[in-house]
Order: sequence, then structure tokens, then C-alpha cells
Amino acid sequence: MTSHRSETHEIAARVAAHVSETRLLASIETLASFGARGDGGVNRPALGPLDVEARRHLVERARALGCSVSVDACANLFIRREGTGTLAPVLTGSHIDTQPSGGKLDGCYGVLAGMEYLAALEDAGVRTRRPVEAVVWTNEEGTRFSPGAMGSSAFVDPARLAHYRDARDAEGVTLAAALDAHRAAFPDLAPRAGDVRAHAFVELHIEQGPLLESAQVPLGVVNGIQGVRWYALHCEGVAAHAGTTPMPLRRDAMTLALALRADLNDVAHRLGGESTRVTFGRWSVEPNSINTIPGAVSFTVDFRHPDAAVLAAFDERAQSLARRHGVRCEALFAHAPVAFDARVLATLDGACRALGARAMRLTSGAFHDAMYLAAHCPSAMLFVPSKGGISHNPAEATDARHLVLGARALAHSLTTLCEAA
Amino acid sequence: MTSHRSETHEIAARVAAHVSETRLLASIETLASFGARGDGGVNRPALGPLDVEARRHLVERARALGCSVSVDACANLFIRREGTGTLAPVLTGSHIDTQPSGGKLDGCYGVLAGMEYLAALEDAGVRTRRPVEAVVWTNEEGTRFSPGAMGSSAFVDPARLAHYRDARDAEGVTLAAALDAHRAAFPDLAPRAGDVRAHAFVELHIEQGPLLESAQVPLGVVNGIQGVRWYALHCEGVAAHAGTTPMPLRRDAMTLALALRADLNDVAHRLGGESTRVTFGRWSVEPNSINTIPGAVSFTVDFRHPDAAVLAAFDERAQSLARRHGVRCEALFAHAPVAFDARVLATLDGACRALGARAMRLTSGAFHDAMYLAAHCPSAMLFVPSKGGISHNPAEATDARHLVLGARALAHSLTTLCEAA
Repeated sequence: MTSHRSETHEIAARVAAHVSETRLLASIETLASFGARGDGGVNRPALGPLDVEARRHLVERARALGCSVSVDACANLFIRREGTGTLAPVLTGSHIDTQPSGGKLDGCYGVLAGMEYLAALEDAGVRTRRPVEAVVWTNEEGTRFSPGAMGSSAFVDPARLAHYRDARDAEGVTLAAALDAHRAAFPDLAPRAGDVRAHAFVELHIEQGPLLESAQVPLGVVNGIQGVRWYALHCEGVAAHAGTTPMPLRRDAMTLALALRADLNDVAHRLGGESTRVTFGRWSVEPNSINTIPGAVSFTVDFRHPDAAVLAAFDERAQSLARRHGVRCEALFAHAPVAFDARVLATLDGACRALGARAMRLTSGAFHDAMYLAAHCPSAMLFVPSKGGISHNPAEATDARHLVLGARALAHSLTTLCEAA
Repeated sequence: MTSHRSETHEIAARVAAHVSETRLLASIETLASFGARGDGGVNRPALGPLDVEARRHLVERARALGCSVSVDACANLFIRREGTGTLAPVLTGSHIDTQPSGGKLDGCYGVLAGMEYLAALEDAGVRTRRPVEAVVWTNEEGTRFSPGAMGSSAFVDPARLAHYRDARDAEGVTLAAALDAHRAAFPDLAPRAGDVRAHAFVELHIEQGPLLESAQVPLGVVNGIQGVRWYALHCEGVAAHAGTTPMPLRRDAMTLALALRADLNDVAHRLGGESTRVTFGRWSVEPNSINTIPGAVSFTVDFRHPDAAVLAAFDERAQSLARRHGVRCEALFAHAPVAFDARVLATLDGACRALGARAMRLTSGAFHDAMYLAAHCPSAMLFVPSKGGISHNPAEATDARHLVLGARALAHSLTTLCEAA
């Protein structure tokens, strides 16, 4: 066992060393050319013509690497390199659809680091025990078709696809029609055999936040994904003349909303401590006139926390605070926190150590495909720093040395997982 | 002198007693039929076809009362009953244009109470020393053509009309064209001789606020009109991901805006005391997304106070608070407070006393034509209660007994002013 472990370690290090900075960075620039914006960003809607062309480019590259490519009912692409045995595969990957004013890295980095791993295996002359698949998950952003992470969630629970198929984009095109068009564009792709449970999934992604940068740590091992609660609070007052209505007789809906916002903010921090993230992002004021007292105000709260008990306590306190203020509280969305697999996390920790790279544990504030994959197989994520914490923006950027280090840590981790019994 | 005063008193009381509840209430209903809404309200845009028909009705009624009607360059109508001498006239009146979902009383009540006064003089067989004119001021609401109170402000300073003539309504019609159409509709109206300064102006109006009703006082003698300051505060933050951005690293523009709002609110009350009216009515949040920290927030402040020194102090404090918070403060509009004439106010007080009616002094929170007339001649206003303080609304209402009492107080006051030397 020790000898197998030490041998695995040696192979993992060798494959990681074959990750090519030049090839990885070039592949990022090439993929970014499909839907390139004038400002350096990318606009590539899920399953649109640019996405199809980008996928065609990846399929060609996969075949050049000697990999097979299969596709499932939600147009997820599986770029597979066979192992020495018939064991369950190790999966990696992310998405290549972007926000309308997105950057080059969100999602794409994880897919391309997965393909870089396949290339590094080839260059290192390594055939892993388990097969490995670099996956392109469909429509993660949720910008063209709602909700997001359709591909990964439908992979984990295919019954979801029936609901998703009716989703329409802004032009009225259904997801069903977009999937048909995708199938027609790739008639030679084999359907993926859907009944094999993966051995593990690792997603490499940019952090999209400032924690790694401010800690000056190049790698993040992601413990899990925060849970979230979305509410809309509907505050009623009486619209009245700003000049003729004395202050004591006013029922200003904004004054009411701000008192509730302050209470919700206090409760969020008291319940959740330093892990709390609470945002009051959307505001609607009626009649929104300079000389009329606000008669109705609606605002949203986005509360996130890694602890399900804290989320549940917030639910209860938010409802009771709204009742106390006489405000209607509408629940819009909820997702439980996801804890990644301890053994996969330990593998990621080990890879960072083996590379001599500093790493820190953190929790993802954003959703990712790994949030759904965690329900399918042991999963975890790796993060690299985002400059200025900026994402969903053409200015999204990561140092080249961090991009390479992340790809090496991914390669090391995947190799270790592929060699596992 | 004493004998003249006592004689005037007797005449004023006699004319006031001839105010007819039946005729006054019927005239309100008749005028409300021009532009009647299904919900009991009125929609009669300034100088539109309905306004022209309403004016034609008033001109016919005026002529039936033996009055002459003249018109000036801004389509203000002057319904004149001659006096015994050639002294400067006493003016009363208000406006008959309405808000799109206006009531039957705002403006109309003042015009119709003026005409009721002319009818009461006729019924009482009284010929006053001074001529009296009931005026219909054009476009007070400012809804069709901006700004409001065009007619009264152009009457006071005819040079303003040159600027107003280019104002366009939502269909692109200029005020100049609307004035031409009005002239064509009333070819037989004599132009008013514009060089006579009036002896006094009294405007009777509904309060449009809750003070008289809550004090259970039927008449208000209006000391003046509050001054106003309008500002827009432009708060800059950094839009960022609600899930990935830790609380200490956020620059939430809404948090900044609310701190400034709280400071402005404190300062407004500290400077202005109980007379302060401060409203934060219009809010714009960018990107206004549930899961994005607000990156930019603009909001308005409407500060009103009867004391020019308080308004000036607020200007200074608002600017310095905005600077301290690093927020850009944009001045949108300002109007100085107006103090009505002490002698005219004393005449109104005396009329209320003579009628045995309780009255209180108050300050108008809303603008009125009298705001401009005060720069032309000694002026003041009388208020009657608004049910629930509601105005600019089909539900606008005043008890019939208050409407009659207000018209009697106006009749008494005007008679006293008309008999003055």
C-alpha cells in the first residue's frame, strides 16, 4: 500500500510537471476568440452558434489527443481518455457558456485545465488506472436559459431535464429546440452511457472573490458551497404630498423598509458571525417621485451561510421580523449548503503540499456545477485567485503563474484519484 | 373712519350671507363634468379641448352675471365686475386645469368660489368701490406643460412667457400653439389691459394636507408658502458578487446612501424643528440585481421650510455631509419661502371672526398661484380642510359645510378689501 501510494505520488508529480504553461494559456486565448468582445471579454450564450463552434473546436482538439467524445441528453460533452481498467471514471470540468459581458476564465479555465491534463498525460506517457473525463457542462450561467447549472443538475438527476426543456430564451427559443440544434450540429457524437456512477469529480475554477488575493495564497481548497436564501420584502405605506404632509402623520414605506433592512442585517450578522454574507440588492420604490412620500417599497435579501442550521434560523427570524414590521415576506429561492467530500479534499490538500504550493481552505460563495455533482459522487473544488476579486466582467483576470499552478494541482489530484482502488 | 369700517363690515356680512350652498355645489359638479373620469375624478389638461369647453362655460356664466371677460397673453381669464370707482381691482381665483387623475376641487374650488362671490354681490345688490376680478390662471398643475403656475408667473412677470412658449406637451404640441388655439376659440374676448397693479389677491383653496382636519378647524389662514430645496445625491460603490464578497471588503453603495440619508434626515429635523418636511422620494439602484451588491445609488431629498435662513443652513449642511461621505450632491431646484401680506392676512382673520368660524394660521406645503401673485400685490390664501389630507386623487373631498364656509370667508374678505381706500 505504501509502495502503491508512493508510486502514485511519483506519477502524479510527473504528470503535473508536464502541464504546459504555453499550451494552457494559448488554449484560453483560442477559446476566448469564440464570442470575443471588443473590450477583451467574451459573450458566448449557452448552445448558441458561438458555443457550438467553441464545442466543435474542443471536440477536434480532444480527438487529436486520442480521446473519445460522447454527449448526453442535456448536451453535456464528455471528453474521455481510457484507463488501464474498466473502473468508474474520474471526472473534471466546468462550463464554457459565459455571462453577456463575461471574461475569459469563468468556467473555461476549468474545462481547459481538464484538457491540459489529458494532454499532459499524453506527454508524460502515463495511462491511468481509471478512465478520466473532462466534461463541458451545459448552460451553467443560466443567462440564456433559466435556471443555471442545467447540464450538471440534469446529469445528476435526468428527471429534471423534462422541466428544463420548456425554458425559453429572450427570443422565445426553447431549450428543447436548442438541444435539437446541438444534436444536429454533432451527428457523429456517441450518446454517453448514463448509468455509470463516477468515482470522483474535481472542478477547478477562478475564485470570483477576493479571499485568496488578499491572503496572498495561490490555491484554495474549497470545503463546500454556501447555502442561500432569497426573499423579497414588500413594505406598504401611504403615498402623500411631500410638501403638505407633516412628518408625524406620514407612513413612509421607505422608512419602514429601512427599519426592517437594519433588523435583518443585525440578525444576519448575529446568527452567522464572520461567515455571513447578506446583500440587499434590488429595490423598487413607488411612485418613485421626488415630491411624493414613498407609498410602497419592495427590496430583496440574499443571505448566504455554510451552516444549514444558521440558514434555518435566519428563515425563522426573517419571517418573524417581517411580521413584527407588518411587512409581507416572500420566499424566492433557497439552496442548502453543500459540503464537499473529505477524502477528495484530502487529495487536493495533498496535491498542493506535493507541489510545494501554499493553499488555504475556503467556502465558495458562488454556485458551481460541483454543487450538483456532489450529490452524484465524491466531489470537491480548487480555486485560483481572481485579481481584485472581479468576475462576470471583461476585466476578470488571474496571474499566469496561478493559472499554471492551479492546472498542476488539478493534474496531481486527478492522477491520485485515477490511481485509487 | 370707524363709521366706514362698521359700514364695510355690515356689507361684507350681507354679501357673505348671500353665498348659496346650492349654487356653489352645483357649479362644482358642472365644472367637474368637463373631463369627468369614471371614478369620480377629473382629467382636464391645461388648454386642451376639455379645458376650452370648461372655460367657455365659465365665460357664458360670467356674462349672464353681467361681468366682462378679458384674456391676457398666457390665456389667463379675468372675469370682472366693475366697482363704483376707477380704483385698482381686487383679484381672486385659482386654476381649473387638473392632474391626470385629479379631483373636483383642486383649483376649481377657488375659481368657483370667486364666481359665487360675483353672484352673491349681484343677489345682495351690492356694488363694491373697487372692481373685483375672478381669475382663471392657466396651467397651474404643470402636468401638460412644464413648469407649473405658468399663468400666474407670466402675469407677474410677462418676460417669462417667452421661455414658456417653447414648452411641449407629451404629443409635442408647444405652449405657443396651444395659446394660439385658445385665442382662436375665444375671438370675442378683449385683451386685458396689463399695466394695472392689483390692489390685493386672495386665493381660496383646499388644504391638500391633513392639518385642518386633524385640528378639527374649518378654516385656515395661510401665512405663506414653504420654501423648498431639491437635491439628488449620487453614491458610488463597487458592484460585486453577493456570494463571493466578504462583508468587510464590500463597498455597498446602498449602505453609503443610507448613512447619508440618516445624516440628512437628522440635520433636517435639527435645523428645522417641527416645521421641517423632508422626503427621500426617488431611488435608483444599479445594477438592482438580487445577487449583486449595489454599485451605484442615487436618491433625492425634498426639504421644505418656511424660514429662508433654515433653507440656507440646510443647503450648506447637505453639501458638507455629501462631501464628508464622498457623495456628489446635485442641486435640482430651489424656491424661496413666500410670506403673505400682513394686512391681507388680518383681513382674512377678521372675516373668519365675523363669521363666527374657528380658523388657524398655517403654512402651505404645496405651491399655488398665490406664490407668484405675492410678488405683484398684497396677497394671501384661505384653506378649507381636505378629507384625509388626500389630493391629486379622485378621492379628493371636502365637507359641503366647509366649502360654503370657505366661500363665505372669501366673500367677506374680498368685500372688505374692495371697500378699502
